[in-house]
Amino acid sequence: MPSEFELIRRHFVRPTRQTVLAAGDDGAIFRARPGMELVVSTDMLVSGTHFYSDTDPEGLGWKTLAVNVSDLAAMGAEPRWALLAAALPGVDEAWVAAFARGFFACAEAFGVDVIGGDTTRGPLNFCVTIFGEAPQGRSLLRAAAQDGDDIWVSGHPGRAALGLAHLQGRVLLADAAPCLSALLRPQPRVALGLALRNLAHAAIDVSDGLLADLGHILEESRCGAELWDEALPWDGIAGFCADPTLARQCLLGGGDDYELVFTAPAASREAIAVQGRNLALPLTRIGRMTAGPLPEAVVRDAAGTVLPVTRRGFDHFA
Amino acid sequence: MPSEFELIRRHFVRPTRQTVLAAGDDGAIFRARPGMELVVSTDMLVSGTHFYSDTDPEGLGWKTLAVNVSDLAAMGAEPRWALLAAALPGVDEAWVAAFARGFFACAEAFGVDVIGGDTTRGPLNFCVTIFGEAPQGRSLLRAAAQDGDDIWVSGHPGRAALGLAHLQGRVLLADAAPCLSALLRPQPRVALGLALRNLAHAAIDVSDGLLADLGHILEESRCGAELWDEALPWDGIAGFCADPTLARQCLLGGGDDYELVFTAPAASREAIAVQGRNLALPLTRIGRMTAGPLPEAVVRDAAGTVLPVTRRGFDHFA
Repeated sequence: MPSEFELIRRHFVRPTRQTVLAAGDDGAIFRARPGMELVVSTDMLVSGTHFYSDTDPEGLGWKTLAVNVSDLAAMGAEPRWALLAAALPGVDEAWVAAFARGFFACAEAFGVDVIGGDTTRGPLNFCVTIFGEAPQGRSLLRAAAQDGDDIWVSGHPGRAALGLAHLQGRVLLADAAPCLSALLRPQPRVALGLALRNLAHAAIDVSDGLLADLGHILEESRCGAELWDEALPWDGIAGFCADPTLARQCLLGGGDDYELVFTAPAASREAIAVQGRNLALPLTRIGRMTAGPLPEAVVRDAAGTVLPVTRRGFDHFA
Repeated sequence: MPSEFELIRRHFVRPTRQTVLAAGDDGAIFRARPGMELVVSTDMLVSGTHFYSDTDPEGLGWKTLAVNVSDLAAMGAEPRWALLAAALPGVDEAWVAAFARGFFACAEAFGVDVIGGDTTRGPLNFCVTIFGEAPQGRSLLRAAAQDGDDIWVSGHPGRAALGLAHLQGRVLLADAAPCLSALLRPQPRVALGLALRNLAHAAIDVSDGLLADLGHILEESRCGAELWDEALPWDGIAGFCADPTLARQCLLGGGDDYELVFTAPAASREAIAVQGRNLALPLTRIGRMTAGPLPEAVVRDAAGTVLPVTRRGFDHFA
């Protein structure tokens, strides 16, 4: 059986490109570029809570890093370095190798150096810390939304939740591939986050659900919001799901899409549309920030009537 | 029952002093000082592997951060910021509050801003990532030891292992307090690490055992080492332990002391001794680096005879 050190060396030590000193010492060393500040985030993914123990390990490896990359995308920061700590119940080297393949595929795709970590024995658990850079004072903050801002969302929110419902047998999708891809291989919106630095005020990634995550912007910015039901990107999921109630739950309440919800002044509309075309990424204007009531989002139909919605996000201890 | 967000807010959000943006967004933001590089490390502590589930939570909180601070001490870096991710099997708020007290006591003691993290449900697991600064190119690396360097160790290595043996009933210490303190409230040698930047070549902290951790320096520096049995700091544990075999096992093979082992040129001897007096910390010259055989440490008695030793470190998968 390979030792802890041997396991790390074989699967998790790969060349780095923008790092002073990577794995192999008590710490790793890197340098921020002049004028840049560090933006950092950590996420812990636990077997049984965030994924099933029989999950495909390569997809899991991708997603473990991708959800962290997405946090930086939502800040308008450029991902640069990551640490991976893992607790493993034992050594299944084929499983570890597949996980590492997915993890490093994501690192390659987003230009991230994997610079070290920790491996130990324990119930399956991965903790990634990611480090990015943004020009000083230019990150996109949850607290920066303003009354009157447009509210936008990228991509096709709800697809990941539909994919999960399909896997769980709660719905049978005729064409499940795009929804499963959204669930299992989420694409963090890094390029969009960077493009929004000069255009948007506030941003967040949709990990817990569109309404729930927009709610964090409202809380931090002390604003309300109204969304326009007919403006929501129904097209992105209607083709997959004939059940309108489920489609609504998935679009407004489904997590795990890692799309960006952001607010921007009306003056940015044209430039945002151009960015969407450049990135070949649908960007949909779905509502606007309001002065109140605080801090709640309402969804209105075309006649202006407030619709009842499930606004439940995901709370691990609820 | 408090929610995940409420639990974090109550116990883990405290004022920061050297941070642009702390908890509450997708990421935290800080700035490195000009001329400094970032030194980062992550450690995962798992219930049942690294600590017992009935461990005093306040002491556990201290140690969870202290072991990370120690990694930076061993690099000669100044600890500045930390992230804490935690998986908890449920919400025992009194337990969480005690853990947070210990964690923040350590953060205060070493000038660390706790700038964010993650909380989730799962088998008890803590993952800390720590960020420090060192002047560019001036960190103490495992790979920097040179043939002929003196080998030094700080403090009283072996006490933590003696404390553990006492807790496990393998020995009955008449005066257990100093050994239990070494085990449960380790004092990372940050001030020593900073002082050694100009004096030492290589350094590592003793987490797995003196011989095992010195072994990492030997591997990375491609050197051998000889230690002088009579020069080892027996005084630090002999008074507590009447069993010479156990004392030897603890001093050479015991982990968890978080003392520093470092190598330095003979020209630094006097300055190192001065630093030890300034810091009121015993610094003991215990051997020297040799050209070979690679990469192994031998222990010699006063007559030059090589003594048999247990050199086993701690391998989580062995």
